[in-house]
Amino acid sequence: MIFASDNWAGAHPKISEALGRAAGGFAPAYGNSPLDRRVEERFSEIFERDVAVFFVATGTAANALALTAVNLPGGVAFAQAEAHLVEDECGAPEYYTGGARVHRVPGRDGRLDPDELRRALEKYPDGSVHTGQPMAVSITQATEVGTVYAIEAIGEVASIAGPRGLPLHMDGARFANALVSLGAKPAEMSWKAGVDILSFGGTKNGCWCAEALVFFDPDRAKAMPYLRKRAAQLFSKSRFVAAQFEAYLADGLWLELAEHANEMANALADILSSAPGMRLAWRPEANEVFAVMPRAAVDRLQGAGARFYEWPWSEARRDEAEPDRVLCRFVTSFATTRQDLDEFARLAGA
Amino acid sequence: MIFASDNWAGAHPKISEALGRAAGGFAPAYGNSPLDRRVEERFSEIFERDVAVFFVATGTAANALALTAVNLPGGVAFAQAEAHLVEDECGAPEYYTGGARVHRVPGRDGRLDPDELRRALEKYPDGSVHTGQPMAVSITQATEVGTVYAIEAIGEVASIAGPRGLPLHMDGARFANALVSLGAKPAEMSWKAGVDILSFGGTKNGCWCAEALVFFDPDRAKAMPYLRKRAAQLFSKSRFVAAQFEAYLADGLWLELAEHANEMANALADILSSAPGMRLAWRPEANEVFAVMPRAAVDRLQGAGARFYEWPWSEARRDEAEPDRVLCRFVTSFATTRQDLDEFARLAGA
Amino acid sequence: MIFASDNWAGAHPKISEALGRAAGGFAPAYGNSPLDRRVEERFSEIFERDVAVFFVATGTAANALALTAVNLPGGVAFAQAEAHLVEDECGAPEYYTGGARVHRVPGRDGRLDPDELRRALEKYPDGSVHTGQPMAVSITQATEVGTVYAIEAIGEVASIAGPRGLPLHMDGARFANALVSLGAKPAEMSWKAGVDILSFGGTKNGCWCAEALVFFDPDRAKAMPYLRKRAAQLFSKSRFVAAQFEAYLADGLWLELAEHANEMANALADILSSAPGMRLAWRPEANEVFAVMPRAAVDRLQGAGARFYEWPWSEARRDEAEPDRVLCRFVTSFATTRQDLDEFARLAGA
Amino acid sequence: MIFASDNWAGAHPKISEALGRAAGGFAPAYGNSPLDRRVEERFSEIFERDVAVFFVATGTAANALALTAVNLPGGVAFAQAEAHLVEDECGAPEYYTGGARVHRVPGRDGRLDPDELRRALEKYPDGSVHTGQPMAVSITQATEVGTVYAIEAIGEVASIAGPRGLPLHMDGARFANALVSLGAKPAEMSWKAGVDILSFGGTKNGCWCAEALVFFDPDRAKAMPYLRKRAAQLFSKSRFVAAQFEAYLADGLWLELAEHANEMANALADILSSAPGMRLAWRPEANEVFAVMPRAAVDRLQGAGARFYEWPWSEARRDEAEPDRVLCRFVTSFATTRQDLDEFARLAGA
Repeated sequence: MIFASDNWAGAHPKISEALGRAAGGFAPAYGNSPLDRRVEERFSEIFERDVAVFFVATGTAANALALTAVNLPGGVAFAQAEAHLVEDECGAPEYYTGGARVHRVPGRDGRLDPDELRRALEKYPDGSVHTGQPMAVSITQATEVGTVYAIEAIGEVASIAGPRGLPLHMDGARFANALVSLGAKPAEMSWKAGVDILSFGGTKNGCWCAEALVFFDPDRAKAMPYLRKRAAQLFSKSRFVAAQFEAYLADGLWLELAEHANEMANALADILSSAPGMRLAWRPEANEVFAVMPRAAVDRLQGAGARFYEWPWSEARRDEAEPDRVLCRFVTSFATTRQDLDEFARLAGA
Repeated sequence: MIFASDNWAGAHPKISEALGRAAGGFAPAYGNSPLDRRVEERFSEIFERDVAVFFVATGTAANALALTAVNLPGGVAFAQAEAHLVEDECGAPEYYTGGARVHRVPGRDGRLDPDELRRALEKYPDGSVHTGQPMAVSITQATEVGTVYAIEAIGEVASIAGPRGLPLHMDGARFANALVSLGAKPAEMSWKAGVDILSFGGTKNGCWCAEALVFFDPDRAKAMPYLRKRAAQLFSKSRFVAAQFEAYLADGLWLELAEHANEMANALADILSSAPGMRLAWRPEANEVFAVMPRAAVDRLQGAGARFYEWPWSEARRDEAEPDRVLCRFVTSFATTRQDLDEFARLAGA
Repeated sequence: MIFASDNWAGAHPKISEALGRAAGGFAPAYGNSPLDRRVEERFSEIFERDVAVFFVATGTAANALALTAVNLPGGVAFAQAEAHLVEDECGAPEYYTGGARVHRVPGRDGRLDPDELRRALEKYPDGSVHTGQPMAVSITQATEVGTVYAIEAIGEVASIAGPRGLPLHMDGARFANALVSLGAKPAEMSWKAGVDILSFGGTKNGCWCAEALVFFDPDRAKAMPYLRKRAAQLFSKSRFVAAQFEAYLADGLWLELAEHANEMANALADILSSAPGMRLAWRPEANEVFAVMPRAAVDRLQGAGARFYEWPWSEARRDEAEPDRVLCRFVTSFATTRQDLDEFARLAGA
Repeated sequence: MIFASDNWAGAHPKISEALGRAAGGFAPAYGNSPLDRRVEERFSEIFERDVAVFFVATGTAANALALTAVNLPGGVAFAQAEAHLVEDECGAPEYYTGGARVHRVPGRDGRLDPDELRRALEKYPDGSVHTGQPMAVSITQATEVGTVYAIEAIGEVASIAGPRGLPLHMDGARFANALVSLGAKPAEMSWKAGVDILSFGGTKNGCWCAEALVFFDPDRAKAMPYLRKRAAQLFSKSRFVAAQFEAYLADGLWLELAEHANEMANALADILSSAPGMRLAWRPEANEVFAVMPRAAVDRLQGAGARFYEWPWSEARRDEAEPDRVLCRFVTSFATTRQDLDEFARLAGA
């Protein structure tokens, strides 16, 4: 009953086997092996256009380098107030960029509110040396609170960013979960909707360490080899990341694993919404479930071995908080099992 | 006949198996698993004192974070002119520190020359706001040119750094190779000789990705958890690094693999020194061999499939260069075989 | 009728004369002249304790260096959402610190709201490597919107910052204006109320270029000489700044000039509140007046040569905006004259 | 007898008067006054082409921003080993650029040696992600040791930088002294010789604070307004810098002052070369004189009130050092008088 985070899971057997196969023999280092090349091409296939792909060590690195690649002096990126790169990266985006700002844009349900984005951008008129320069908009798909942007919603954000000349970055640490949730194709949910740069995560969905930064316009990525190396993010034995991605993207494994995680989240949502005294905080659309629960139930479930985190109410929802109730986050993954859910349901009295 | 670099090798089967074992089940993320803890304790055992250990993605990250952890405003680190962190890290130390300088100190054979270090330090008198502040000395063990500092030589460097209040960092990307070369214990070749911070590398010696930053005085590492996370170097599934180190450090595997690599280097040195027209540039002490070779021989060997790099003559040795000869670097590893050497010997005419 | 900004004024004659006197002869450079020393001592007198003083080129530099001096890895400073260092410094604080974040805390009237500060701090629990580390709280006195913190209000902010170990910085670009507004002593409005570091501005109040960073605990300033030089903020002919401060602080000139500017602001507020169709947005407490005015009146006044800026409604007051009215800012200074006000009153029909 | 540095002098009376004149009235802040515009145009006249000009607070700021404006990820600038930006700026270039490296290129007499520059550049092959990217070459005119590059020598450096696509920066803290030494026109000694960016200093030559960064290709300066503001180098009352430059550049004042300083240096060189036991270390070409002197003479002269600094022998000249002699630096300026020299000559026994 581990619902603490999808990164508490290990690696899927097929990923593990791929790592084993990659272990033998010799190969050029620093991303120059034939396997690296092959996987880069695979990304182009999957996204239906030539893309530039850069493997990095962590999702935080992907996000931080994405902003670094497009930063300007006095640069300001715009992201929803609870985005991972705002709240959970210890200032890595600010540090990697040498001091860019991430402007927190309000928005309910983890999504950036388009009107608030317009309003935030007005604070930074073109040519104002005092306020600084907008340089990117970043959205998270699936969001940090388990919701998903509809394709049209991505397009709307892009339609605000575009006229200001701002590239649109997508933090896709849970890209696959959002993709299967929408039933969309990778191209539709990314560049066709206006996304310019994508942090493509495999780690939370069954790899042990497989994160890639994808540029849909390779020209924009010219400085990336230097940016990545300078940031100490270029693996010498890069082929091991490539091997994970090769297995991940083969035969739809990545979609299958995300599908499973999402299904588990849905089933868990059903349990939580029918358990006595509990309610869903909002409807899950990917692999995270947020529930409002009595303190006593939280204690009882955790005491029985269930692992999940209490969560702060966001600014936007603070008024919904109930004094004697606790907001809790549950995350499912490829490794979540029906048995886990059944046991949890039993304990929860659902 | 791959002698291009030790990072062209894959992973040793025992490392690979350890990765496989780590793949199952759930574990706390971000370095908080029991396995992470256990391996941290193992480091303390191996070094015979309580140490603080931080896993990172690359050796470059370890070096850059080591300097960041001890940096001062206007900070200057001192390293031998051909050190990896000077020549091969795309400015990562300067970038991570936000602009520290690495002062290139001359020295033959890849070792920092103590007198030159003293002279370099004189350029930075205490309290001079104009010159900046010395903040660390860094040495590489084994060096970039396959030589090794004797224990006493490390102590001599430490005896220069100490009175100026400078921590001594050791880039140990090939720590194991140096250790078996000297027949020394880890503690003797590190903190007992005056080393304060160690970049401990496993990747070049049979892991796929296992690098650790070791602080011999844990108090000095208080900011490290933030520095590492901010640098996007904190793995979520950190236990996979821990698993590699556990296997690496078990039953002396790490020493065994380094021993093998060094033996292969010695055997290769014998071949190169007896082949017609070739000579050793200097005597190898770890797993790298440098030879002076006729251009025709280089072409013939590479044409036959041998992989090795031509190398520039360092400043210090520039006058030894022979106009019609080429300096070449050969690196051996755990994966180098006798058969490879035999075939190479045959081709070289040795 | 120049009410555009207090930095549109030139230098007061006494400052100008002091600059002239300083021009002759020779003096040690880089802040080491007897005059520099004397003025540093004068600061200690004025603040009734030993302080460490550092002259810098701009108020932005003072603010940015204050945060740099106390920054931590993943550091977060807290400031009111419209503070100068948030809105008007092109990201200098983020840049100088190498990527610290300035967290915008809501608050009406330009003042940081204590409850909102408490709530903002809760988002950064101690020891969380993901969220980063709080490292300072910054307030502006007088604020950007012409209001002033009462001594007790400063103390309340300090009482929140203190238990979290956060130094309290005061941006005193208009320190003198606040001081005379409160009728307080410098010590009362700074360290006695809990302020640790002060950006002490003279430029807006009659100097041409005189900004100082004051540390009330000199031990905290040990790195400052290096931080200032590294930031290219150490004047070689520093004595010219010292000369300005000497004249500024002699015989109460600084208070006299601020008194005048505040009086002019009060008189201007009377005019604006009695002119047809206009109202004060809020009561001025220093040398800035904000008025809500009909567009036609704005056009007419500016057409007649009055200089003042339209101003955006802050987030906190957005709902007070009137669709057909404009918010305007008027700033007075030592150089504002009664004649200017009389002419403006006539034009405004007050 | 103050020969400690040209920045120990104050301001020339004409500069002082200009500051006084600028003190009255109101003017747009942040570089937008008519006077600022006028002086910018004056720079274009003097350099015989449209240039982009940016006033900053210090020469260090000018140098550091010049490199920042052209920096690349993993960027490396090349400068003579004793250049001011290498030895005397507390790492400001590295800090402002967020971690660029300044590669010390050997060279006698303060000048960058062209062959050594070629050799240094070879260490950074195009496209090598490991070594980093060359991004600029910087020369100092006049040099730190009182010598001057001939026009052809500047051209030779430019001819090496150009084919690698590297902009050529000139640190012209003593531009005027070099100009009158060569009898050249500003255009000849800058862009016509291949210089792309110039730090144009007025402070050492009679201003109190007047430094400008000049871009000969204004297109290259597009980001400069943001870079300057972000670096806290944009004066609010910028017109006071403009006023100094206006007077400085009017009626050849700047050349007259430099001419005087150079003459004084020449006369001082005559004294030092004829005094018993002393010799010139090398022939001065601008306003700095270096002499080799007996320790006793140094003590006697300083005891009698002469101010000058002992100087370290550079690496390049270390073998010329005489054990019982001291290398000393003497700097003259607009404020040096014949009487000073006569008295010094008398004391020196020349």
